[in-house]
Amino acid sequence: MSHSPVDSHSSHPRTVTAPRGTTLHARGWPQEAALRMLQNNLDPEVAEHPQDLVVYGGSGRAARDWSSFDALVRTLTTLAGDETMLVQSGRPVGVLRTDEWAPRVLIANSHLVPDWATWEEFRRLEALGLTMYGQMTAGSWIYIGTQGILQGTYETFAAVAARLAERGVTPPESSGSLAGTLTVTAGLGGMGGAQPLAVTMNGGVVICVECDESRIRRRLDHRYLDVRADSVDHALRLAEEAVRARRPLSVGVLGNAAEVVPALLARSVPVDVVTDQTSAHDPLMYLPLGVAFDDWAAERARDPEGLVERARESMARHVEAMVGFLDAGAEVFDYGNSIRDEARKGGLTRAFAFPGFVPAYIRPLFCEGKGPFRWVALSGDPADIARTDKAVLELFPDNEPLVRWIRLAGERVHFQGLPARICWLGYGERDRAGLRFNELVASGEVTAPIVIGRDHLDAGSVASPYRETEAMADGSDAIADWPLLNAMVNVASGAAWVSLHHGGGVGIGRSIHAGQVTVADGTPLAARKLARVLGNDPATGVIRHVDAGYERAEETARRLGVRTPMREGPVEGSVQP
Amino acid sequence: MSHSPVDSHSSHPRTVTAPRGTTLHARGWPQEAALRMLQNNLDPEVAEHPQDLVVYGGSGRAARDWSSFDALVRTLTTLAGDETMLVQSGRPVGVLRTDEWAPRVLIANSHLVPDWATWEEFRRLEALGLTMYGQMTAGSWIYIGTQGILQGTYETFAAVAARLAERGVTPPESSGSLAGTLTVTAGLGGMGGAQPLAVTMNGGVVICVECDESRIRRRLDHRYLDVRADSVDHALRLAEEAVRARRPLSVGVLGNAAEVVPALLARSVPVDVVTDQTSAHDPLMYLPLGVAFDDWAAERARDPEGLVERARESMARHVEAMVGFLDAGAEVFDYGNSIRDEARKGGLTRAFAFPGFVPAYIRPLFCEGKGPFRWVALSGDPADIARTDKAVLELFPDNEPLVRWIRLAGERVHFQGLPARICWLGYGERDRAGLRFNELVASGEVTAPIVIGRDHLDAGSVASPYRETEAMADGSDAIADWPLLNAMVNVASGAAWVSLHHGGGVGIGRSIHAGQVTVADGTPLAARKLARVLGNDPATGVIRHVDAGYERAEETARRLGVRTPMREGPVEGSVQP
Ligand SMILES: NC(=O)c1ccc[n+]([C@@H]2O[C@H](COP(=O)([O-])OP(=O)(O)OC[C@H]3O[C@@H](n4cnc5c(N)ncnc54)[C@H](O)[C@@H]3O)[C@@H](O)[C@H]2O)c1
Ligand SMILES: NC(=O)c1ccc[n+]([C@@H]2O[C@H](COP(=O)([O-])OP(=O)(O)OC[C@H]3O[C@@H](n4cnc5c(N)ncnc54)[C@H](O)[C@@H]3O)[C@@H](O)[C@H]2O)c1
Repeated sequence: MSHSPVDSHSSHPRTVTAPRGTTLHARGWPQEAALRMLQNNLDPEVAEHPQDLVVYGGSGRAARDWSSFDALVRTLTTLAGDETMLVQSGRPVGVLRTDEWAPRVLIANSHLVPDWATWEEFRRLEALGLTMYGQMTAGSWIYIGTQGILQGTYETFAAVAARLAERGVTPPESSGSLAGTLTVTAGLGGMGGAQPLAVTMNGGVVICVECDESRIRRRLDHRYLDVRADSVDHALRLAEEAVRARRPLSVGVLGNAAEVVPALLARSVPVDVVTDQTSAHDPLMYLPLGVAFDDWAAERARDPEGLVERARESMARHVEAMVGFLDAGAEVFDYGNSIRDEARKGGLTRAFAFPGFVPAYIRPLFCEGKGPFRWVALSGDPADIARTDKAVLELFPDNEPLVRWIRLAGERVHFQGLPARICWLGYGERDRAGLRFNELVASGEVTAPIVIGRDHLDAGSVASPYRETEAMADGSDAIADWPLLNAMVNVASGAAWVSLHHGGGVGIGRSIHAGQVTVADGTPLAARKLARVLGNDPATGVIRHVDAGYERAEETARRLGVRTPMREGPVEGSVQP
Repeated sequence: MSHSPVDSHSSHPRTVTAPRGTTLHARGWPQEAALRMLQNNLDPEVAEHPQDLVVYGGSGRAARDWSSFDALVRTLTTLAGDETMLVQSGRPVGVLRTDEWAPRVLIANSHLVPDWATWEEFRRLEALGLTMYGQMTAGSWIYIGTQGILQGTYETFAAVAARLAERGVTPPESSGSLAGTLTVTAGLGGMGGAQPLAVTMNGGVVICVECDESRIRRRLDHRYLDVRADSVDHALRLAEEAVRARRPLSVGVLGNAAEVVPALLARSVPVDVVTDQTSAHDPLMYLPLGVAFDDWAAERARDPEGLVERARESMARHVEAMVGFLDAGAEVFDYGNSIRDEARKGGLTRAFAFPGFVPAYIRPLFCEGKGPFRWVALSGDPADIARTDKAVLELFPDNEPLVRWIRLAGERVHFQGLPARICWLGYGERDRAGLRFNELVASGEVTAPIVIGRDHLDAGSVASPYRETEAMADGSDAIADWPLLNAMVNVASGAAWVSLHHGGGVGIGRSIHAGQVTVADGTPLAARKLARVLGNDPATGVIRHVDAGYERAEETARRLGVRTPMREGPVEGSVQP
């Protein structure tokens, strides 16, 4: 009953980076793309803990273990253009002959039969070597570092700024920016590290609480964070000064959010916006009050159940303070880490007093099929991304927030691993961009193929009642048919690889979601696939929101011709049985 | 927020049957096949409650409601050969342009995000019109009536007979049959109705307890059941006489299994085999002790929670008696209806004292990719099935149990709806049969295309810890990646429709499973798709069991060349990063 007949002792942790340039290590560009993106996910510039194969988000892995990684690489290098590799929770389990039109890789990560879908059972099975946690883009090989979340975070804070202006909190001269406002948040990890830059790109001031010194240092190094304060007092002095001057500034401070956030409330600090991105979705990874950061790992190993309980109690304190800021008039939202539900488990009654960020700010975008479109230059050449940036500006010159983002991103975003870009595009836009990139590859204006994918957090690809599908208009929050349809649609439409995950973002038991990646290698076949995938993938988002009754989605479907049979009358000449 | 903008009053319950013959009502045979199979699932000969769109298994539906049914028909009649219709829990939600290679229909039924995956939440969402229960082949349009389960039941009882012989319970002259033995079971519904015929085809005697008189009558009408007894005493007299004469006989008796089975134990009736197929997976559909059958529906409506509790208590009594028979030396098994878990919830400690039928009898077949291959003659002509029966006998003349089954089935099986056949075939066999059928269609020996599908209960298509994946050798019972990979593989391989369901067979929260249907329309494209789907679909079963460490699966993979990367050494010339 061995799970590693290939001697696992021959598979050591090591430093992995993706090859650059135009030399193929596989039998075709789609396979090469999967190979490089797997490797890129583990690049020390990209991954949070590459030696453990952990890419981001607590324990989100790219491969189950190093012998699985070796087998993935070995298989991708030899996979034919009509073969498909099957990946079960980070381990390659089979190779089948399918078709040129079919994906080269099919991935299912972290799924459990629902009655068994708890962290306890998951960790038990993980310890047996039977599964791994894939998060969203860790196990589906399309993580691009903190830029991935930066764009989403940027869009979210822009929407928050607009809301503050509507509410008259900010004066008209702020013109929809966060100038002169103070935001408080916590967590500077793989996702949360985007928060300081997203706030300052919107002109605001932010204090970020983080208990791990190395994370603060990393965000300073990457220029996502401006300064580090020595103490909460120091942070407040720096922040208040910047707010008065209406000057953007991000301040990191070492501490436990469950202590610092209540302390700020107790002092009646005038905070305008409060959120959080500690890894609350996995309570083992939220530092409880009274535990020193340096003792944490040992304590976790010694008494995991006890630590989970203490973490939930601490989150109750933390969220209680967030609710206090809400009562004081601040814009407060859950940033997709399940902290409200954990705080509820920790005993807090009013944990759900503030909304999740999706119903508050993101759903209107989903109704138009808008979501996090991203791409990567397999050449490794930043000039290729500059060329695609230019193409996007040429394609959508009238989309002001998009144009502003692309310009700022070009200046401020530090590439991690292979150069990459992200921007939010809707139904009818993504396919145009993909086809344009394919032309650039075909013409040689871009030097090697471009990989095009997205986060699993997208319009039609996720069921997650505490985040993406919270408070749906028709009550369909927990209906999980949609991400499965999305995955099957992407397989049917010719994506290069398709992934179906459980538990990403909000934790085991709480979400089902899908991803796709397509490769623009300049061929006519790629063009056909790009047109299908990049049309149909966001179309499932429009469809999902039409079905839930959102008028904005119905309007989009009507305007752009997305077919929804329940809205169609009897067709002439059709047969009624 | 209306879910039925097409006036649902125009969509009445009505009698549905599939068209026969070679005239197309759709734009191609794959679409026509989906249309006819949807209609055939609701044929009064096939469906248990067609007016409610219920096909079998408690509340397993073919479509969410009649307006969804109308929209499905309308869409299928106009769907192009490169379009795909999306079905979300029995309702058509979108039509997308994909590719000729892609499926025409993609179906996801009954899925809930795991933390919400309970019957209570499911029924709440169903009442809101947001989902439906798809069972396995009800919502995926490939139910063929009780023959479907008959073959599986026949194989199971044959394996039970072999076990009794091994144990010396039956004498050598029984030569692996059930001659001279008595089986007790309950439930003569859509699935359970196959039990009496399966036992008598194996030469045995069986008493079947059923609380619904109309079900007993139906099985008598179809000749699946030989006689009906007036009382338990009468049933025992008939059965004991037949056992003494070593003559096959099936006896139906009206009663509540929770009363009758304990009564038989109390009388020390010499029973050799005990099982059960009441619809225990949905405790609302198990008649509790003390409730008259005629009052049941009203009681259910009045106090569903109370009824569930009482049903669980009754199941505890029922299973306690089954355990008593086990202690007395009988061969006792759970026949896939979750009755052990419900009895446990009803307070019985020893509920899991006897095994499920899969680890006991079916798993060795799964290791070879063997599973329930089935096909349907779209012509409606029984002669087409006779022709395919002959083809199967010609293809596999040395497979004795298969040959015996096909012969007996041809004599004894009463077709329901479109003529259909089922037999269990393994990896390397299904594709040969499919390609042969395609030739028969091409040559005109068979008069119209043949639909080829299977139950979701198959080697690689299901995760169900109380049934198909109970007691896996490596402990991977609850890992649900496999059915998702299976569904994606079938989409990639060109199936005509692919379905992914939750909760079939064993109930909400307890299973995830996939199905595929492919159409042999005699074209070269169909031949390519049949070769891929009917090879890759069972291959995922072999792969799943290789991964779990089953030697028989490893041997199959080696012998038939199924590639499993973790078993492959480094490939020469491959690149190690
Ligand atoms: N909103 C979104 O779109 C989105 C997207 C992805 C992930 N998320 C969620 O956001 C959360 C953060 O993700 P991540 O990838 O950054 O996780 P991460 O594990 O990389 O980072 C979490 C950080 O929180 C810090 N932390 C833990 N407990 C703390 C405490 N008590 N006080 C202060 N700091 C503490 C950790 O040291 C770590 O640096 C996760 O729950 C994730 O699921 C949200
Ligand atoms: N073993 C398998 O391969 C397999 C396959 C499919 C389904 N099943 C399971 O088998 C069970 C039966 O399926 P079905 O489709 O026949 O269901 P069904 O609802 O059509 O039939 C169940 C029958 O049980 C009877 N019944 C209910 N309570 C009873 C009681 N207390 N005493 C006597 N009879 C009672 C009902 O009247 C009904 O006729 C289900 O739980 C199903 O999930 C097993």
